[in-house]
Amino acid sequence: MKVNGKDYRSVWFNSEYQSVHCIDQTRLPHEFTVLTLSDLSCACEAISTMQVRGAPLIGVTAAFGMYLALRENPGSYDLARAKLLATRPTAVNLQWALQQVDKHCEGLHGDELIQQALNTAQQLADDDVQICSEIGESGAAVFEKIWRAKSDNSPLNVLTHCNAGWLATVDWGTALSVIYKTAARGIPLHVWVDETRPRNQGAALTCWELTQHGIPNTLIVDNAGGHLMQHGQVDVCIVGSDRTTACGDVCNKVGTYLKALAAFDNQVPFYAAVPISTIDFSMNDGVKEIPIELRSPLEVTHMTGLDGQGARTTIQLSHADVLAHNIGFDVTPARLVTGIITEQGVFQATKESLQALSA
Amino acid sequence: MKVNGKDYRSVWFNSEYQSVHCIDQTRLPHEFTVLTLSDLSCACEAISTMQVRGAPLIGVTAAFGMYLALRENPGSYDLARAKLLATRPTAVNLQWALQQVDKHCEGLHGDELIQQALNTAQQLADDDVQICSEIGESGAAVFEKIWRAKSDNSPLNVLTHCNAGWLATVDWGTALSVIYKTAARGIPLHVWVDETRPRNQGAALTCWELTQHGIPNTLIVDNAGGHLMQHGQVDVCIVGSDRTTACGDVCNKVGTYLKALAAFDNQVPFYAAVPISTIDFSMNDGVKEIPIELRSPLEVTHMTGLDGQGARTTIQLSHADVLAHNIGFDVTPARLVTGIITEQGVFQATKESLQALSA
Repeated sequence: MKVNGKDYRSVWFNSEYQSVHCIDQTRLPHEFTVLTLSDLSCACEAISTMQVRGAPLIGVTAAFGMYLALRENPGSYDLARAKLLATRPTAVNLQWALQQVDKHCEGLHGDELIQQALNTAQQLADDDVQICSEIGESGAAVFEKIWRAKSDNSPLNVLTHCNAGWLATVDWGTALSVIYKTAARGIPLHVWVDETRPRNQGAALTCWELTQHGIPNTLIVDNAGGHLMQHGQVDVCIVGSDRTTACGDVCNKVGTYLKALAAFDNQVPFYAAVPISTIDFSMNDGVKEIPIELRSPLEVTHMTGLDGQGARTTIQLSHADVLAHNIGFDVTPARLVTGIITEQGVFQATKESLQALSA
Repeated sequence: MKVNGKDYRSVWFNSEYQSVHCIDQTRLPHEFTVLTLSDLSCACEAISTMQVRGAPLIGVTAAFGMYLALRENPGSYDLARAKLLATRPTAVNLQWALQQVDKHCEGLHGDELIQQALNTAQQLADDDVQICSEIGESGAAVFEKIWRAKSDNSPLNVLTHCNAGWLATVDWGTALSVIYKTAARGIPLHVWVDETRPRNQGAALTCWELTQHGIPNTLIVDNAGGHLMQHGQVDVCIVGSDRTTACGDVCNKVGTYLKALAAFDNQVPFYAAVPISTIDFSMNDGVKEIPIELRSPLEVTHMTGLDGQGARTTIQLSHADVLAHNIGFDVTPARLVTGIITEQGVFQATKESLQALSA
């Protein structure tokens, strides 16, 4: 997608210089910095310090990390793999991406091995872009229908939570892919962006990428969406999902459930845009079964931004004695979800509808 | 209520020194500072800079401001009144308190006028304390019943939004009065405190006053309450209200509606604690009729806290280009409200039930 008018992916290989690059997401939205991942340790650092984040992007970066390691020393496969795996031990997609490299590189040596690792990384990147693009097209058809049903031709007002954008994938994103693809159809739209406390990915990343791509957007606090929906200012909600159950329960960034309740209460359609790979057909009841990550209380009690001199500063918001509890995700029951948008089309959030995808 | 083990009101008259004092709420939670309001301009500044905030507290402080002005110059009545009224032009309670001073001081002069202004201010303060105390008792009876119905004698888990505490009134508070009075009955409780973006009154004020009074509490982001309710970690929700309609629609700090939806969805009782004076019997449909204040976008894009050196610092969270929309309040429809707790007891959120109070 566009940054300062130029097309970017979140991670890429420059064939001219044989170099791997990514956007440093820890500097956004205040600075746009491109990193060069010159070796394995750079790739590991980018993942562990969250310069790259988002499941698909972490996986692809790890695959590029294998290429960088092998380029330096084709004998370092196992060590490199272990180092990459340790950067984010709970990231399922990281493990999956390394398995793809294993599969494609099995039995190869030397230059052939190096080239195949690179090919695999690039293929994973391209596949992710393709899937995200198709998710966007599936959803854009739905959004176009909603927009056409508006009687006044005014912009389609979309509300989104967190960052399910191209910055979380390689390109396009999931929820935001639907927005980009809708805009590409010439449909005017405007996005309400939840700031998404505590890590503020909405304020920091979603506003930034939408603005860079020319999509009108407005930042709101997470508390505001209900009021907007009561007053007809939201036509449709769309979010990503880290994990969706066989029955259509959607696990996503904490606070998603509250927005889904408000959408349901005000007859606003509520969609989750998800790659089929994130649907967990072994799970049924998301609220009961999906384990929810507890994160550091410091994310609640402290916040980082620019001070008056433009320097990155972390401030403490509450009194030092305050105890905080930091839940990373919540589960939106399928009954509140209008549809699940995938690369193979839009499905109802029911076991019957989703089982077509379980093959 | 207690601060460092000592009893305080949020504003008070010291008869020994004939001085008026208040707590500087702009310094909380990081510093506990008592201000001396030595003259009219101090009182005006305290109100306009929000060193005192909360409708009842603003009104009482304005009445003390009249006393301070008259003490200096008994001929300054009209000028002082106009200056105080201009500090927060939209504060209904400020106007009401000045009308009370008018009524009680009519026809008086000199020392008699000064003394009567002081008496009125003290009476308004005492009346507010009495009302808040009674609200607390009404609610504590409800909370005790909910706690007794818990089978395991574990602490009552209460969720609250924003600050409806003694800092917003003269003493006790409204929603938090119920919590203090419940604790006074020897019932163990624990409070989940919504940080309450964008102004963070939960994180800054509610956590502070609960901790000072010895009530166990945990800070959460506004996004987290739904998940906690899904998992049985909230027994009851309680909030204050700036305005309640004749039908029981509750206007309160933005985000209240989202919590009420989650409470309803999980069969968690949801109460509003309100002085009867804030019930507006001229209004029926709160969502349609109650005007909602739009506030500065800077409250969303910037935040203030302590930096690493302990200095108060304001940081910018989002990119400078970001547009933000800042809605101050929202309306929770009566159908989501289990009951309205007042100084005259607990009422259903219906026109039939509340009309007993309209006399």
